[in-house]
Amino acid sequence: MTYLSEDGSHEAVNARMSPQTPERLKQVMESLVHHLHDFIKDVRLTEAEWETAIAFLTQTGHMCSDTRQEFILLSDVLGVSMLVDAVNNRKPAGSTPSTVFGPFHVDGVPEREMGASISLDGKGEPCLFEGRVLDLDGNPIEGACVDVWSDNADGFYDVQQPDIQPQHNNRGIFRTGPDGRYWFTGIKPVSYPIPDNGPVGKMLGHLGRHPYRPAHMHFLITAPGYQRLITHTFVAGDPYLESDAVFAVKAPLITRFQERDASDGSPKWKAAYDFVLPPENSAEA
Amino acid sequence: MTYLSEDGSHEAVNARMSPQTPERLKQVMESLVHHLHDFIKDVRLTEAEWETAIAFLTQTGHMCSDTRQEFILLSDVLGVSMLVDAVNNRKPAGSTPSTVFGPFHVDGVPEREMGASISLDGKGEPCLFEGRVLDLDGNPIEGACVDVWSDNADGFYDVQQPDIQPQHNNRGIFRTGPDGRYWFTGIKPVSYPIPDNGPVGKMLGHLGRHPYRPAHMHFLITAPGYQRLITHTFVAGDPYLESDAVFAVKAPLITRFQERDASDGSPKWKAAYDFVLPPENSAEA
Repeated sequence: MTYLSEDGSHEAVNARMSPQTPERLKQVMESLVHHLHDFIKDVRLTEAEWETAIAFLTQTGHMCSDTRQEFILLSDVLGVSMLVDAVNNRKPAGSTPSTVFGPFHVDGVPEREMGASISLDGKGEPCLFEGRVLDLDGNPIEGACVDVWSDNADGFYDVQQPDIQPQHNNRGIFRTGPDGRYWFTGIKPVSYPIPDNGPVGKMLGHLGRHPYRPAHMHFLITAPGYQRLITHTFVAGDPYLESDAVFAVKAPLITRFQERDASDGSPKWKAAYDFVLPPENSAEA
Repeated sequence: MTYLSEDGSHEAVNARMSPQTPERLKQVMESLVHHLHDFIKDVRLTEAEWETAIAFLTQTGHMCSDTRQEFILLSDVLGVSMLVDAVNNRKPAGSTPSTVFGPFHVDGVPEREMGASISLDGKGEPCLFEGRVLDLDGNPIEGACVDVWSDNADGFYDVQQPDIQPQHNNRGIFRTGPDGRYWFTGIKPVSYPIPDNGPVGKMLGHLGRHPYRPAHMHFLITAPGYQRLITHTFVAGDPYLESDAVFAVKAPLITRFQERDASDGSPKWKAAYDFVLPPENSAEA
């Protein structure tokens, strides 16, 4: 038995775990304690800074409610959410890259007929989204479920404005046919700030960072026999592409939104994107 | 500009800080992000584990109130509080070691006459605490303020039982005279569990750890021209000395509580301890 001292402090803590602790929990906690202690030693955290950290975490916890997840925001702005996505989604070459899920997905959205509009409030600039769901060899995937969601013309998701009808505005689920094609009308998404009236927003301010996300459409694509894909398509030319507050941009996801002749009543914009899904249990990249 | 990827993920995050970010904040955040990302990569944290972590932090935040600080408990049981104490209190050889402050100190406790009793409820086994406050050369320090507090016979601090009178039970402040001596009557402290009905207690359970602290008396000693000392004296023989839930035990702080003849009405126990304070601005060990 050794008491905790500066050298080997993490060993003193980790030695306390019971031999019956599940192996994975043991591994995660040992690494967490080791890195946490190394951080404190590296910067020689002062007692006042420790107090600031305790107060920050407490305020972050108190900000969390049924409609606000401040710890996810914290994870997002520190690049943690994207890193967790990265280490869990090492896809084979040729696959469409994943990006963060985000807190605004909703279950129970109705499946719509292919080609339907998800813009139920009629606000924003209409945009045709179209493309194919493909396997790694370029073959169409039939029966892929394409679950999409975006913000509205004011930069809010419907769940952030629960009092505003209609429900499920700018959300929809579509299912591909034998040609693997999808198409639907939504709006050209707009860039928006993550909620920044809490401790995480204050932290961003201290770091000289803005809270904006570049405009994007969310996609969650599932198909039997293939890996689930959670990703966005980003609007090319968006001023925040190089500084997404949550670090979600990947170059292959930047999509040209093409302006079209809308005099016949067709949508003013078109965004074409083909998604490529690797098979389940395929080897990692 | 590089987007965030697995390699160099922390550089992508840290590159976002403004050049105007204060130097120390920059240093702390860079190190925090680096170590946090290394932890995630080392264990390859799964998405389900990340969700568990978000839920744990949220519950910990919701547990915090005016009378409960669950994040301090978390810091304590992970050895973080003791490590922060260690890196900030590297004292010259011969000094009394520091230990954690804990959440139960109270400001505004009345100064009592030397020798007074702090056991106001008359419960517990009376104990005479005595000794000297000395400098590194063994000279007495006059005018040292000796602020002491302990749990009651049931293992609770008065602030944990705000409805039970009298106020300031088992607390007191004493001031040394020219001989540097202090003495007062309290009770022999008892071991107690840290509050374990929240997420931190649940975590301890998963790790196979108990929530107990070995019995101890708190001391906060200040004297003009000397470094402030925050420490405990621990009751020798306590069954939890080797497994303090918050890792606060240091060998030199373990104190013999001597049983005495109490037939003349004097306290049944005596605990003698001399405290040694280094001068302000003395070199670190």
